[in-house]
Amino acid sequence: MRHYPSSVLNLINNLSRLPGIGKKTAERLAMHILQAPRKEAELLSNSIIKLKETVKLCSVCFSLSDGNICNICGDPARDASILCVVERPADMVAIEKSGSFLGLYHILQGALSPMDGVGPDNIRIKELILRIDRGRIKEIVLATGTNVEGEATASYIADRLKNYPVKVTRIASGVPMGGDLKYIDQVTLQRAMETRHTV
Amino acid sequence: MRHYPSSVLNLINNLSRLPGIGKKTAERLAMHILQAPRKEAELLSNSIIKLKETVKLCSVCFSLSDGNICNICGDPARDASILCVVERPADMVAIEKSGSFLGLYHILQGALSPMDGVGPDNIRIKELILRIDRGRIKEIVLATGTNVEGEATASYIADRLKNYPVKVTRIASGVPMGGDLKYIDQVTLQRAMETRHTV
Repeated sequence: MRHYPSSVLNLINNLSRLPGIGKKTAERLAMHILQAPRKEAELLSNSIIKLKETVKLCSVCFSLSDGNICNICGDPARDASILCVVERPADMVAIEKSGSFLGLYHILQGALSPMDGVGPDNIRIKELILRIDRGRIKEIVLATGTNVEGEATASYIADRLKNYPVKVTRIASGVPMGGDLKYIDQVTLQRAMETRHTV
Repeated sequence: MRHYPSSVLNLINNLSRLPGIGKKTAERLAMHILQAPRKEAELLSNSIIKLKETVKLCSVCFSLSDGNICNICGDPARDASILCVVERPADMVAIEKSGSFLGLYHILQGALSPMDGVGPDNIRIKELILRIDRGRIKEIVLATGTNVEGEATASYIADRLKNYPVKVTRIASGVPMGGDLKYIDQVTLQRAMETRHTV
């Protein structure tokens, strides 16, 4: 690598800090940028800075937004009586892509993880309760992850909401659609069995 | 994707123009940049623009350089009597990494490819001959690729240099070190057999 001029080396180093991009890939990307039209390099460079400058968290649901309120919170067609609680903006995007939810969201910005020092005050649980206090919400769908942290977060929130006049539900976990039973892990099968429903 | 704010979408689109980066990877990279410190994003953004602004071609050998003359051409310890001809700067870097060559380079900036409209005047052959005309060079090592274009380019240059007082050599091609004969393609084996040498 040291055989490249320093401006090429700099870009290779900065690119290889991105997740999943090693030195070899960074070298290939830098060579591409070098040969690409200047316009394309400028667009890429500007969009990185613009992202950091313009993306804020929606003041209502804490998802990513270019403005003060995100597109979903600002959409009068969405059902404001049902709230889906997720850990991260990417989780919200995944649910939106599935088209299976027409209510509003609440993005916690993380999950409880005592090992990493993340307690209830470090994620947006207080703000969730404030939204419920305002009284329009009838159902909370807990869609945090199905790993230890996500499960603990869902349990904690369900517990905190015990005395509130809202229905608290959890997204189902079980055998993925199209999944072959013999390849599914035991914990998932146990959960699928426990949460079986009448047809 | 349309569920992201437009500044996030912009970055995802610009990132996915890079080679080997699909929409999914671009999404993951954008999420990383979003969560990374502002400083890191600025470094990346600036290094892209700085690359386009500062990298030039060395006026002697046409490799990448931050200045008018590259580090190798400016190094008095390199043997100026032997010149290695390669297609691309990355080829030069590969040879430098191997540490097997201590002379100077000449980067053609491509290979002859009549199908793509690349003729002898479109790559730096004229400049190579000008360097030879200056008279200090004793040997030209042709290290263009071993594909059709690279072979044709090497043949063409060897032919053009027939009447010049320089020795023209070609890097050996054959079985890679550690390669298993039964997995080597026929063309490589033929070449290895033809160019066999006494031990």
